[in-house]
Amino acid sequence: MAVLEKKTLNGVDTGTVVSFVDAIKGNSDLAKFKFRIQNKWVEGAFNQATVGKFYGANQENTHLKTFTWDADEPPSLAGHDRGANPVEHLLAALAACLTTTIVYHAAIRDIKIDSLESELEGDIDLRGLFGMEPKVRSGFQNIRVNIKVDTDAANIEKLKALSKLSPVFDVTTHGTNVDVTIERK
Amino acid sequence: MAVLEKKTLNGVDTGTVVSFVDAIKGNSDLAKFKFRIQNKWVEGAFNQATVGKFYGANQENTHLKTFTWDADEPPSLAGHDRGANPVEHLLAALAACLTTTIVYHAAIRDIKIDSLESELEGDIDLRGLFGMEPKVRSGFQNIRVNIKVDTDAANIEKLKALSKLSPVFDVTTHGTNVDVTIERK
Repeated sequence: MAVLEKKTLNGVDTGTVVSFVDAIKGNSDLAKFKFRIQNKWVEGAFNQATVGKFYGANQENTHLKTFTWDADEPPSLAGHDRGANPVEHLLAALAACLTTTIVYHAAIRDIKIDSLESELEGDIDLRGLFGMEPKVRSGFQNIRVNIKVDTDAANIEKLKALSKLSPVFDVTTHGTNVDVTIERK
Repeated sequence: MAVLEKKTLNGVDTGTVVSFVDAIKGNSDLAKFKFRIQNKWVEGAFNQATVGKFYGANQENTHLKTFTWDADEPPSLAGHDRGANPVEHLLAALAACLTTTIVYHAAIRDIKIDSLESELEGDIDLRGLFGMEPKVRSGFQNIRVNIKVDTDAANIEKLKALSKLSPVFDVTTHGTNVDVTIERK
């Protein structure tokens, strides 16, 4: 990694990042994190999730606040719009991760970013969700991400390469193993 | 689909769902939706997303409210905990989608659910994100979902099968195509 110097760039304290990366080089267990959320169904399409704790750097950690998510569906899909729907939450996760990945990797490479915005759109055929057509998948068939960055023109190709390191982009494009157990309460 | 009757069950107006499914049978274009979000980077790990509109059932649609997401990282990862981090947002999307999928499909099959909760945990090795070890992926290596449902014991196996229809579960386990363009603003 071509770390040029330790300073704050793009709002990222690169000293914290570089020190963490250096520590991982000496002890790879420090890189092993477990992120967790809890979800509770309320009624119909409405459910709520929370997160407060995670494991990482060899210890249990607590966020400074508890974060929550509300999920629902619009009235046309038999919900009441008390929150964004689950696939919109997925797009939000992907956008956040691409953004953070680009901004962090740019900072530790001394690439200045003045602004960054993105628009995401995913195509989905609800015949998949309703199990109406076996050949139609239930998930997004395609997702388009358009990112606009205010930075020197010479940086754009580097940022394209760095964006591929995004964890949510990795999961969204390559999939991962998900073990689901359902048991009676 | 074994729809027994049209009524509200599990808080789901099954009449709305069944009417929509019937309409799709007559015109599959009605099933084609486009969900969208916009994200704006603020500084460092902090970025915010919004959603207000989506396309579906052959028209542009507006949610009853605009929904927003804040994403950040904890201080140990050089952020300020102004929001959950992107991979926690992904877990929240997955939990919401599994929950809604189970509850809706149960409702239209006359399966009563009295409560449903889930806990999710994902393993991630940050050497992937930092590009330190080519053989370590950046995304979750494994995600565990534990769902507890208060329902008749005879329903559990059916709910397990129905949960697989979740769109976010499909994307998370199988991946999908994501086209990313990055251009200068």
